[in-house]
Amino acid sequence: MSKMIAMQVPRPGAPFERVERDIPAPGPTELLIRIHACGVCHSDVLTVAGHLPGIAYPRVPGHEVIGTVEAVGEQVKGWTAGDRAGVGWFGGSCGYCTRCRRGDQFACLNISAVTGVTRDGGYATHMVADQSAAAHVPADLDEIESAPLLCAGITTFNALRNCGAGPGELVAIHGVGGLGHLGIQFARRLGFRTVAVNRGRDKEALARSLGAHDYIDSEEGDVAEALQKRGGAKAIIATVTSADAMQAIVGGLGPNGTMMVIGAVGAFPVDTLALLGKRAAVKGWYSGVAADSEDALAFSKLNDVASMNEIYPFEEAQAAYDRMISGKARFRVVLKMD
Amino acid sequence: MSKMIAMQVPRPGAPFERVERDIPAPGPTELLIRIHACGVCHSDVLTVAGHLPGIAYPRVPGHEVIGTVEAVGEQVKGWTAGDRAGVGWFGGSCGYCTRCRRGDQFACLNISAVTGVTRDGGYATHMVADQSAAAHVPADLDEIESAPLLCAGITTFNALRNCGAGPGELVAIHGVGGLGHLGIQFARRLGFRTVAVNRGRDKEALARSLGAHDYIDSEEGDVAEALQKRGGAKAIIATVTSADAMQAIVGGLGPNGTMMVIGAVGAFPVDTLALLGKRAAVKGWYSGVAADSEDALAFSKLNDVASMNEIYPFEEAQAAYDRMISGKARFRVVLKMD
Amino acid sequence: MSKMIAMQVPRPGAPFERVERDIPAPGPTELLIRIHACGVCHSDVLTVAGHLPGIAYPRVPGHEVIGTVEAVGEQVKGWTAGDRAGVGWFGGSCGYCTRCRRGDQFACLNISAVTGVTRDGGYATHMVADQSAAAHVPADLDEIESAPLLCAGITTFNALRNCGAGPGELVAIHGVGGLGHLGIQFARRLGFRTVAVNRGRDKEALARSLGAHDYIDSEEGDVAEALQKRGGAKAIIATVTSADAMQAIVGGLGPNGTMMVIGAVGAFPVDTLALLGKRAAVKGWYSGVAADSEDALAFSKLNDVASMNEIYPFEEAQAAYDRMISGKARFRVVLKMD
Amino acid sequence: MSKMIAMQVPRPGAPFERVERDIPAPGPTELLIRIHACGVCHSDVLTVAGHLPGIAYPRVPGHEVIGTVEAVGEQVKGWTAGDRAGVGWFGGSCGYCTRCRRGDQFACLNISAVTGVTRDGGYATHMVADQSAAAHVPADLDEIESAPLLCAGITTFNALRNCGAGPGELVAIHGVGGLGHLGIQFARRLGFRTVAVNRGRDKEALARSLGAHDYIDSEEGDVAEALQKRGGAKAIIATVTSADAMQAIVGGLGPNGTMMVIGAVGAFPVDTLALLGKRAAVKGWYSGVAADSEDALAFSKLNDVASMNEIYPFEEAQAAYDRMISGKARFRVVLKMD
Repeated sequence: MSKMIAMQVPRPGAPFERVERDIPAPGPTELLIRIHACGVCHSDVLTVAGHLPGIAYPRVPGHEVIGTVEAVGEQVKGWTAGDRAGVGWFGGSCGYCTRCRRGDQFACLNISAVTGVTRDGGYATHMVADQSAAAHVPADLDEIESAPLLCAGITTFNALRNCGAGPGELVAIHGVGGLGHLGIQFARRLGFRTVAVNRGRDKEALARSLGAHDYIDSEEGDVAEALQKRGGAKAIIATVTSADAMQAIVGGLGPNGTMMVIGAVGAFPVDTLALLGKRAAVKGWYSGVAADSEDALAFSKLNDVASMNEIYPFEEAQAAYDRMISGKARFRVVLKMD
Repeated sequence: MSKMIAMQVPRPGAPFERVERDIPAPGPTELLIRIHACGVCHSDVLTVAGHLPGIAYPRVPGHEVIGTVEAVGEQVKGWTAGDRAGVGWFGGSCGYCTRCRRGDQFACLNISAVTGVTRDGGYATHMVADQSAAAHVPADLDEIESAPLLCAGITTFNALRNCGAGPGELVAIHGVGGLGHLGIQFARRLGFRTVAVNRGRDKEALARSLGAHDYIDSEEGDVAEALQKRGGAKAIIATVTSADAMQAIVGGLGPNGTMMVIGAVGAFPVDTLALLGKRAAVKGWYSGVAADSEDALAFSKLNDVASMNEIYPFEEAQAAYDRMISGKARFRVVLKMD
Repeated sequence: MSKMIAMQVPRPGAPFERVERDIPAPGPTELLIRIHACGVCHSDVLTVAGHLPGIAYPRVPGHEVIGTVEAVGEQVKGWTAGDRAGVGWFGGSCGYCTRCRRGDQFACLNISAVTGVTRDGGYATHMVADQSAAAHVPADLDEIESAPLLCAGITTFNALRNCGAGPGELVAIHGVGGLGHLGIQFARRLGFRTVAVNRGRDKEALARSLGAHDYIDSEEGDVAEALQKRGGAKAIIATVTSADAMQAIVGGLGPNGTMMVIGAVGAFPVDTLALLGKRAAVKGWYSGVAADSEDALAFSKLNDVASMNEIYPFEEAQAAYDRMISGKARFRVVLKMD
Repeated sequence: MSKMIAMQVPRPGAPFERVERDIPAPGPTELLIRIHACGVCHSDVLTVAGHLPGIAYPRVPGHEVIGTVEAVGEQVKGWTAGDRAGVGWFGGSCGYCTRCRRGDQFACLNISAVTGVTRDGGYATHMVADQSAAAHVPADLDEIESAPLLCAGITTFNALRNCGAGPGELVAIHGVGGLGHLGIQFARRLGFRTVAVNRGRDKEALARSLGAHDYIDSEEGDVAEALQKRGGAKAIIATVTSADAMQAIVGGLGPNGTMMVIGAVGAFPVDTLALLGKRAAVKGWYSGVAADSEDALAFSKLNDVASMNEIYPFEEAQAAYDRMISGKARFRVVLKMD
């Protein structure tokens, strides 16, 4: 096959458009990837609805990509055709700037590409990615199950392993959805005392089956108080995107606790007196580099962490996206290409 | 002398009142301390103006106390009459609650006393303090110079040693005042690349003489941008108490940077997108336990950190307090008792 | 009953001797504990065989004690008669020395008592312990199962949570015995990639059932090489007490790896060139304070960690001790008092 | 000039030999560097005396190189001719192996080159280095003074910033020589309570002038005891290369202390009981990546850390090397090329 097919957004706010293109040749440091599956993530709205300034259209969204390398650029090392590859939000790093050389490739000063946002992503049969953006994916991992781990997975896994909580300490997963249902699994398997927090009791049984030791219905009273009754949280992983919900729960932090904000909500009024009194922190976090994806995949494999997915054929990208936007999917939506 | 003299606040907002009292006997775990000097700190306003609910009046303010132990309670260990003692904001810890036993005495569940706020403090010739609230002070330290280290000193020292920055990394001290002039000295001597930030150029020469490698006039342009030009701050020690000033500078954090808020400002709207993008944090911090005071004193002695003080005789507590409130003192005000 | 019964060692190397004593009154800061169960630990050999100089005889061994508080000293706080208490190796801390006040009670400068070694321990129906040495034990924990967690449990749990490994990183548990069978369970539940290392294949099935992801038979080849083939260990928990075995495995550390030595072996020749090349470390570790015991118990309850025990009636202390010494017990030996 | 001159070792143990070669063209990822200065380090003995198996001869030693980039390979990014460059022990990293991508370039699996050992180094007018091995050196740094910072400097700086000690904690610099005289300066400026340890009193005045707060003459008694009297060391930086000297001082560690071994001594018998009792560690450390060199240089510039050097003209490499070997140099020997 000498053509690739992509589902692109022609302009902000417009529906997806199916296009055929010539399969591109990878640049000197790039990989050409034939895509098997791509997760549909809420951040795709940045591209589809045009919330972020400066995106050039048409644009192919998608940053939870699993595929197989078909060709490699001449300077590429460590990759050969036939390797399984994963690509997430992180669009690559230069390797030579002052941050890369200190091991913080995520904050690279030279490459600021974002997969599916500032360069074409995974709603397609093929894509090219910089080698630094690609995660090695073991061949024995299921491609559908792995796709959402490349964004929802590493975001929650990374936030949890950097949240400052120790074994047995109380960690709240706020929101049992696409991020939260993975967060609960990771938190439990990382050794935290894991409490799920959500509105209503509908998801309690599920949360417990995923590993939550405890559950708080945020509609039943003051959620901060409920956490304080349990000793105060060493960390809260805020997967919700409502500033009100965040404000309601931040008081549930215990001494030296940290709220990891992994969903953007605009301005969020932090009560400094509350932070001072507890030496507590509000910290932003999202995603990770390709090596973090490898860690998240390996950890998930080792400890039976799995996303729950609704699967759509690639050609139904629009329906898949709409389903994700509806908030009703249980819990991630994945496009299957072949 | 069988009487002590105290400068007490009879009721919220009223002027100081000089009173004579019988010298109290220390309780079983308490020390009776004859006071040599007491710093006048801006937080005294909580007691004097009555900003904090639940303070019982009359009340003696003052939580930067240096004195000599005159008597010890029957269960006191490790202290004998004649020892030099210091007392700060921290009013003591029980030693047996779940937090104390894990080494976090600052978050003690049983003793929540605050010196000079919920129990009588150091605007007096004598005071009693729980042994757990008292820092051992070497006899060769100057009592006037040491007093402000018990609050302004440990707050800045502790915030800096817990801010996450490493040797040579950029640390901004925001505000060159009572806290900031100590913060600059500590930051430099802890090995940080130290930049002082203040309004105008008046204090630049002083900031540099205290150890600042660099200086930013916050009135000359965008202060966040000025920090970014220098690579982004790994930590900002916010000694200012204006939410606007904090909002203006938080964008100056580099990747994984932390703003340590050490002065309460009420609600401070944090732009979560900015935190997310940089994995940056806003963290509250203040004061420390008695052992932290000892550390701050020892470090200051070892490395020639000294507060700059205006000294008032004890009987002029009202004038001393008014001077502190005026914001014109250079930089701390200290009452001298004997 | 106004008498207590103890199994004491009359002099180094002598068999146990059953004695009746008056039940002691607790000192001002002490608890009198009626004992339900006491683990028999290999370190009891220090007392029984007299390997440690300076032990005063007769002496009652035993430092894995679970009991119920019967009386408390007049200065005791936070304990009342009827509370369930646990006592481990750690004999208490003063609370006021420079180390205690910095949160390192384990290194207390004033109390260096060791339960069952320098003061009487748990091979008895009753004992007294300093309140600082006692862990709060939830009433719903099984007393037999909990006893070994007070020494074998906290030693492995504490070593693992302080070994520097992160989620999914390779951690080797060297030795599948009294310590190792708990270490495997903790390592797995803390999120590590857990490999058990032991001589022969006999214990492989057990090790895997306890949670080991992988198993290395140390008799089948070079154990260091076997670890390097798996990427190198981030941590090795050395529960063995043979210097030869330790030397054989230390080369299995990966970059920045740490070997936690939790069993004393006398002098152990460390190849500094090997450490240099990998920036690797050899670190000693054992036991913990009472709060660590509480953490180990809570974590075990939360995550279904349990010791495998052989139970002996209290009166058969000699047989129980001999069984432990034989090395054949599977895996801990516990005395049951009532 | 179309020829370069090098001082090479024709075979293990032979004297240096002056040779002229064609100036090489850099490979695709390499830099051609015209050398201004190169430090003479004790590790050069590995090449000169042939202590390390597998070195191909003839070989040009030298791994403390400061020069100017003359030409860059076609794939090189971030470097242009005219840039000042430094090259240390670290010979480069691949950027794509599992360790590089996790930020640990020092442990790169693909490039294990060592400058001046497995590839030609800096006893020459020119050399080629992989771009990943090269540190950016500010033009305003003195080339002679900077050269030793590329090995002796980063080794001590890096060991100190990774030794686990906090501000004001006791850190011993064992040995006041080529490494130690830099270690003292760094330790003081990193905020540690710095004690120099050396044989005799000859170097006491110098050690104090470099920043040591205190001095121990290791010939005057038990050096471990001397450290314990000062509270026990949180870290000992062992720059000596005698196993006996290390054994004598390791007992001077306080609780949770770490001995950083930065000079290889072969097998060093560690008393595990001593490590256990204090939860102390013996850790290997040396050198660092190019970014660490940049950090060490920047920190030195910022805080007036300078090596004391004896300067030799390049053509006298043999004399310079012999002087270094004599142990009498004060303290580093540097070859000046132009």
